[in-house]
Amino acid sequence: MEAVGIVGLGLIGGSMALDLRRRGFARKVLGVETDPVNATAALKMGLCDEVVALEECVRRSGLVVVAIPADATVRTLPRILDLMAECGTAPGDADGKIVIDTCSIKAQVVRSVHYHPLRGRFVATHPMAGTEYSGPWAAMPGLFDGRACIFADSEESDPSALRKVEELYGVLNMRPIYMNSDAHDVHTAYVSHISHVTSFALALTVLDKERDEKHIFDLASGGFSSTVRLAKSSADMWVPILTRNRENVLHVMDTYIARMNEFREAIDRSDGKKIEELIKEANRIKKILR
Amino acid sequence: MEAVGIVGLGLIGGSMALDLRRRGFARKVLGVETDPVNATAALKMGLCDEVVALEECVRRSGLVVVAIPADATVRTLPRILDLMAECGTAPGDADGKIVIDTCSIKAQVVRSVHYHPLRGRFVATHPMAGTEYSGPWAAMPGLFDGRACIFADSEESDPSALRKVEELYGVLNMRPIYMNSDAHDVHTAYVSHISHVTSFALALTVLDKERDEKHIFDLASGGFSSTVRLAKSSADMWVPILTRNRENVLHVMDTYIARMNEFREAIDRSDGKKIEELIKEANRIKKILR
Repeated sequence: MEAVGIVGLGLIGGSMALDLRRRGFARKVLGVETDPVNATAALKMGLCDEVVALEECVRRSGLVVVAIPADATVRTLPRILDLMAECGTAPGDADGKIVIDTCSIKAQVVRSVHYHPLRGRFVATHPMAGTEYSGPWAAMPGLFDGRACIFADSEESDPSALRKVEELYGVLNMRPIYMNSDAHDVHTAYVSHISHVTSFALALTVLDKERDEKHIFDLASGGFSSTVRLAKSSADMWVPILTRNRENVLHVMDTYIARMNEFREAIDRSDGKKIEELIKEANRIKKILR
Repeated sequence: MEAVGIVGLGLIGGSMALDLRRRGFARKVLGVETDPVNATAALKMGLCDEVVALEECVRRSGLVVVAIPADATVRTLPRILDLMAECGTAPGDADGKIVIDTCSIKAQVVRSVHYHPLRGRFVATHPMAGTEYSGPWAAMPGLFDGRACIFADSEESDPSALRKVEELYGVLNMRPIYMNSDAHDVHTAYVSHISHVTSFALALTVLDKERDEKHIFDLASGGFSSTVRLAKSSADMWVPILTRNRENVLHVMDTYIARMNEFREAIDRSDGKKIEELIKEANRIKKILR
């Protein structure tokens, strides 16, 4: 492909830019980045060839990747489809331009363009890879290798657009999984969103204590660091996810808080048998996690 | 030292055996292991030179390391001091035998031998290193390098015994921190015990869901794996810790559950400003974690 446009040169967009170019999927990467410091850094680091305005990016790119927070995605996606129409892409046009998003929530994103005449040229995806860091500095080659990528409501995309995007994720060595956007949002609430909330809460708990006890972090072990790692994640990304996936997240949090209270009561009663039962049940995670 | 005895050839005992011998602190390691499968495995893997009974281990070793769960430690420690007395070690005897424990709780361990005539020959320590795995198979060289080791109530140990144990942890490249056993138990509740409970609860939450949805783990990302990693930890080790450090653990859990509820309410109200505030506060963990 001659040129791929990447809107948002952060962890996801920047890492994608690196691999799509070095693996030959894109000859040129055109970046869109509203933060001037990030834009300069992305150019300096060679994440993209040029930083351009959104209009120019859509005009010059055959495929546009939207890699910005959920709120901004929902605002920007219809605008990109409008621009594509202005550039001459027509509904069902198998050679027309394509746009994909990369959000951690899918139902609201898909809904934002459901009735757009160019809906078929949009492919909703969620490449499930990342770290707790953000910005162009966080970009890294190989980030997506071997991980799962969800295609949501793919039957609403044109087959030609879908094939091209499957090819893109093939180049990134991702394993495709197909599901509808509502199922996606339930599943990610369980395997991603709740982990972030529990990490944030853990950080807050320990930071509260740290106000009085300056030396508490001398003792922080590897176990603590790994459990609290996600608490470094950015508010820009997570506020929209948690509010837009509100119902699913609340449901999982309620189950989680109930399980915490079950543990609390068992410890309060010094009920070793019940604690043992809970831990052994939790240990089943061993057989399931890779 | 001619011979070091290690009671319990699991992750901690086995890893200590490896490094103490290959780094020249111990010429010989005598293991005590009640589980016959673990004993055979430990011998085969070369973690120790011989597996012997507790009595023989104490008789032949200048220093005994107790590396078994908290309940068993509290039961076994007075017995080891008795055996040391039978072997001729007298109170204040600077050349006498020494015993150390390695538990994640300290107050009850220290209390179990507080009035023992040989209390001075015991040094209470907590080497803060480990993984979520257990058994001799989990032992690894270098496990302790660069980590912190807590010496609890060290003023109750004979200076000669303390110096020898400081030398031992120096060989393991551990950074010594001195505090009283009550402070230790508060701190570890914050930086270790709560992380385990939150991981267990997270595993239980997701496993509940997995009963209906077989494919949920296809989606588990790196973030989830790291947050739930500690849920693989063994009940044998954790039931005694959670029940014996009950009050501190309950206190931390209450703070944690309150923080979770604060998050829950903010999400329920779709209060983006409050969620952002909580996440940014949690982000302060970045500056503190190494």
